[in-house]
Amino acid sequence: MLEELKRRVFEANLKLVEYDLVVLTWGNVSAIDRERGIVAIKPSGVPYSTMKAEDMVLLDLDGNKIEGDLNPSSDTPTHLELYRRFDDIGGIVHTHSPWACAWAQAGRDIPAYGTTHADFAYGDIPCTRGLTEEEVNTDYELNTGKVIVEEFEKRGIKPSECPAVLIHRHGPFTWGKDESKAVENALILEEVAKMALRTESVASMSDRSDIGIESYLLDKHYLRKHGKNAYYGQK
Amino acid sequence: MLEELKRRVFEANLKLVEYDLVVLTWGNVSAIDRERGIVAIKPSGVPYSTMKAEDMVLLDLDGNKIEGDLNPSSDTPTHLELYRRFDDIGGIVHTHSPWACAWAQAGRDIPAYGTTHADFAYGDIPCTRGLTEEEVNTDYELNTGKVIVEEFEKRGIKPSECPAVLIHRHGPFTWGKDESKAVENALILEEVAKMALRTESVASMSDRSDIGIESYLLDKHYLRKHGKNAYYGQK
Amino acid sequence: MLEELKRRVFEANLKLVEYDLVVLTWGNVSAIDRERGIVAIKPSGVPYSTMKAEDMVLLDLDGNKIEGDLNPSSDTPTHLELYRRFDDIGGIVHTHSPWACAWAQAGRDIPAYGTTHADFAYGDIPCTRGLTEEEVNTDYELNTGKVIVEEFEKRGIKPSECPAVLIHRHGPFTWGKDESKAVENALILEEVAKMALRTESVASMSDRSDIGIESYLLDKHYLRKHGKNAYYGQK
Amino acid sequence: MLEELKRRVFEANLKLVEYDLVVLTWGNVSAIDRERGIVAIKPSGVPYSTMKAEDMVLLDLDGNKIEGDLNPSSDTPTHLELYRRFDDIGGIVHTHSPWACAWAQAGRDIPAYGTTHADFAYGDIPCTRGLTEEEVNTDYELNTGKVIVEEFEKRGIKPSECPAVLIHRHGPFTWGKDESKAVENALILEEVAKMALRTESVASMSDRSDIGIESYLLDKHYLRKHGKNAYYGQK
Repeated sequence: MLEELKRRVFEANLKLVEYDLVVLTWGNVSAIDRERGIVAIKPSGVPYSTMKAEDMVLLDLDGNKIEGDLNPSSDTPTHLELYRRFDDIGGIVHTHSPWACAWAQAGRDIPAYGTTHADFAYGDIPCTRGLTEEEVNTDYELNTGKVIVEEFEKRGIKPSECPAVLIHRHGPFTWGKDESKAVENALILEEVAKMALRTESVASMSDRSDIGIESYLLDKHYLRKHGKNAYYGQK
Repeated sequence: MLEELKRRVFEANLKLVEYDLVVLTWGNVSAIDRERGIVAIKPSGVPYSTMKAEDMVLLDLDGNKIEGDLNPSSDTPTHLELYRRFDDIGGIVHTHSPWACAWAQAGRDIPAYGTTHADFAYGDIPCTRGLTEEEVNTDYELNTGKVIVEEFEKRGIKPSECPAVLIHRHGPFTWGKDESKAVENALILEEVAKMALRTESVASMSDRSDIGIESYLLDKHYLRKHGKNAYYGQK
Repeated sequence: MLEELKRRVFEANLKLVEYDLVVLTWGNVSAIDRERGIVAIKPSGVPYSTMKAEDMVLLDLDGNKIEGDLNPSSDTPTHLELYRRFDDIGGIVHTHSPWACAWAQAGRDIPAYGTTHADFAYGDIPCTRGLTEEEVNTDYELNTGKVIVEEFEKRGIKPSECPAVLIHRHGPFTWGKDESKAVENALILEEVAKMALRTESVASMSDRSDIGIESYLLDKHYLRKHGKNAYYGQK
Repeated sequence: MLEELKRRVFEANLKLVEYDLVVLTWGNVSAIDRERGIVAIKPSGVPYSTMKAEDMVLLDLDGNKIEGDLNPSSDTPTHLELYRRFDDIGGIVHTHSPWACAWAQAGRDIPAYGTTHADFAYGDIPCTRGLTEEEVNTDYELNTGKVIVEEFEKRGIKPSECPAVLIHRHGPFTWGKDESKAVENALILEEVAKMALRTESVASMSDRSDIGIESYLLDKHYLRKHGKNAYYGQK
């Protein structure tokens, strides 16, 4: 049973590479077996290309290691806090995917600008407050989890309705009913973050008649490819 | 005959993945057999990696299922409306490709800025008006099709001369004489959308003499690679 | 001998796909055998995936077809004009690569902003004037070549020192001593065009102390990965 | 022993291609055997696809060739100066990776905007001053190394704490305890440079209520995919 959990977490970690969400040893995926209260998570700093399913580390919800020779991800305390406080999630992903990080570093929520976003989350993607100096210096990774929970509680957002958060100056966490859905959500968040900045860029510009194509050039190019006098291609 | 239609639609759907226009289960392609009045379309929410030709769903133009165990794409009523109203199209594509979505989300037409655009469409790519609350709440996907038709009629655009539209806050639909051409048009639209925002970005900047390369550094680099005193590379 | 010319031109065309400079049937490469005065060029509108070396079309410098069942690229008259007027070039490439097109569509030269540019061209990459309505309506592709030559003559630029040009509202042509070098130059132009817009973007922003990382968070992250108290990774 | 050094440097050079940090023959990696005082470096202008381990050139720290038929990288004097002055580095990389070049060409340091940066470097990534005309005209590549060292000394930055620099108008150098780490740092620098410009872009925009998704459209899309009335996908 736990071998199966480790295999699933291993494969979900490899999806981060396939989806271009991580480079080098960045990022981590975990999943929880709620019945047994056991979490499987990627080991810290191990390359994806050599990582094996048996390298996944098993922990209980208090962070005690149950099985595994390697150190778990340094972000483990954040994962555990989220599992303890968000009852209905089964998998968690952390990446430094560059579009989501741009919003996190700028300290802005990702506004809900269209239906791609609405298919994913029921409102803006929140960016947390920054951690205080004390929160950073003591139990940093645990406090990162606490600040996420605080943000969701303060705003009255259900984790099931918004499967993503941006940590101020840092990057995204996503989750889902299992590790596979959490990875999908990491991919979607990156798409949504990308579209949102481009949407603002498009909206900040306006049509420039000075650079519009001349009507005779439009005619020429359209008609050399289309219609009865077209001469592009083969007959 | 219909097996052939299903196979073509299946393969056209896979092209969306090959062309990087979709992630996960996003996007859908359909095609119509005009003689029989039968449409084949991708099933809803099925991963591209496991989808098979026989999973394509067959429907008549009123949306009655003719064949198939799976639910058709949730966007099916939009496709059917376009087939009913645009006589000369044989295939339709919907994606959430990120550059086109940026324009759709910002609610702007894509201006015809150059010959790449002119090779593709005979004028700006229109962005529809937003759907009203009532149109969203009742028969949303059908109304999406109606709003597209309304926009083309209002502006006097022939669907054959502009094979693409942006749905306000949503994303693009493209079409063509068949599903293969519709997929090509989805790819071209994404290129055109990308170029248009970059064109506005280039046009909004201007030459900055403060960051131009110094003439002696230009000389040094050009001449170390080119001409009789070049010392880059092997002799 | 001419089989060899056709094979080289064929392979150079495939490089455009490998280098991500073209989609679908866009773009074309030609080369000239100066001794015989014969040009080999890609046929018009043929997909790269099915194209064969024997599909290359052979023409003399006046555009008379010497060999080949297919229509040559519709841009052939531009290529021929450049071979007639620029004595020292042996290969020519035309693409709609998106970064170069953004500059062409905006009608701006690409300024020489750094050494990547200087390694490539001895000054700014010129954007031509727009063609007049008459030039577009009569012998459009030939006039495109003439406008390129005019621009180089007017500015006193040697084609050997600047192997690229932007056609106003259209896109780039590049050239070289042979078709292989011309393709390399198409790739480099795209890199240079990309860097130039990003350079202007970076230069148009300035350091924002409001979004700089807090010193205690910088310490925390740097020191958890580096130095004697690091706890990221395995021992 | 030196065969091993050449093999490592060869493989590290190929990583630049795998990581999309170089095109054509651009970029170079070197490593030093500190005990013997011997440096292995990529030959100048040799394509990655045909390069072999035995093509790596061996030099002493004064630039005398120890072994190798080919000319070493034209940037060799920069590498040697860095090995002479930065005692604790074992490998060096130079690329023209486009995001880092954008900052170099604009002449700006990359500000430390978030934890991805802080995981990598203990402060901003410095951009050097420009070289003077005399420094460019005499011993250009050596002076490039000297200007790097000058910048680190002037600012009091330890090379071990900031494994990257931007050369004004040119591009990045990175280093590490060995050539493998130096290549990783070249990859991370590119990620950090990309995120930094996007962060400034996000920060320079602000939420636009005029383009936010309408609440009824948010409801429609969220609820057609999630919850008990969802009708996207298969049951």
